[in-house]
Amino acid sequence: MQLLKDKILKYGRIYPDNILKVDSFLNHQIDPSLLAEIGKEFAKRFAGEGVNKILTIEASGIGIAAFTAYAFGCPMLFAKKTQTKNISSEVYTAKVMSYTHGKVYDIIVSKEFLKAGDKILIVDDFLANGAALEGLISLVEQAGATLVGCGIVIEKGFQGGGDRLRAQGVRVESLALIDKMTDTSLTFRQ
Amino acid sequence: MQLLKDKILKYGRIYPDNILKVDSFLNHQIDPSLLAEIGKEFAKRFAGEGVNKILTIEASGIGIAAFTAYAFGCPMLFAKKTQTKNISSEVYTAKVMSYTHGKVYDIIVSKEFLKAGDKILIVDDFLANGAALEGLISLVEQAGATLVGCGIVIEKGFQGGGDRLRAQGVRVESLALIDKMTDTSLTFRQ
Repeated sequence: MQLLKDKILKYGRIYPDNILKVDSFLNHQIDPSLLAEIGKEFAKRFAGEGVNKILTIEASGIGIAAFTAYAFGCPMLFAKKTQTKNISSEVYTAKVMSYTHGKVYDIIVSKEFLKAGDKILIVDDFLANGAALEGLISLVEQAGATLVGCGIVIEKGFQGGGDRLRAQGVRVESLALIDKMTDTSLTFRQ
Repeated sequence: MQLLKDKILKYGRIYPDNILKVDSFLNHQIDPSLLAEIGKEFAKRFAGEGVNKILTIEASGIGIAAFTAYAFGCPMLFAKKTQTKNISSEVYTAKVMSYTHGKVYDIIVSKEFLKAGDKILIVDDFLANGAALEGLISLVEQAGATLVGCGIVIEKGFQGGGDRLRAQGVRVESLALIDKMTDTSLTFRQ
């Protein structure tokens, strides 16, 4: 998606350890017209697949999921992160390792809103090692719902999570796929 | 806003201690067409005020803020909740008491995205005692920005936070203002 790649090149900032900050337009300050275009692009790529619900994880996935759901004309659902010891029986839960924060947390969604028969598109802002996505996929599987695929805004291809999921047969569509980062540059996969 | 009140009456669920759950359409599963209407309504109510940024707090404010920002044609910014002991000098921070979770947390926004000269509309899903809103207002004041007002989806009028802020001169617009709740019913302010 050229509009997004242009934004990344213009406003993204690269820090050591392959950190790409896009917090001026995607995950702290947010450009809603970009979200609207992202939503339309996912709706185009996954058209005709019967998607009836968009699933994401708080917090930075929510805006993306909301506009994607709007483009599909269906509801969205966001998994909550929790460190509560007592997980209710009314939720599906999965463990996710956060490499950024160096800890494991639980993600939960209410069983009421994720059902067998649902056709789920998962969306998120970043895909790196794939841990968050695997947690979300686990929630979909626990519900007996169908995973249509994953729509990712920025994939760090060199961290391997996306290609590992593709090798497992998951359809992963990334709007900007970065194959290489140095301390001063990044290269998109063609 | 009649569409919203109808949704609350039809899908909202009342629990003891004045808890109103709207997680089937507003803050867990989310109806994006409702968010779009909410955004347009805030843009109408605060038209002509020069709003150039929408501020909210994660997580359930994000979808609302994204569609409100889209209706205004301006960016949005969400404050992050953190329990980090070391707050960077690059952020504005405020303490917020969560009555729901019985603890105090810090909220932060990057100084880079909140500036003197900004005209800020704060939006959120709920207003009860006003603690979260006061934290957000503090961030706006620290930046020397102008607070245009607060757009709230559901205000629990009987908990007093909204009227206390109005008495301080803050313009608070709530799309559904509940004056009374019992274990089985709720009454909107006319």
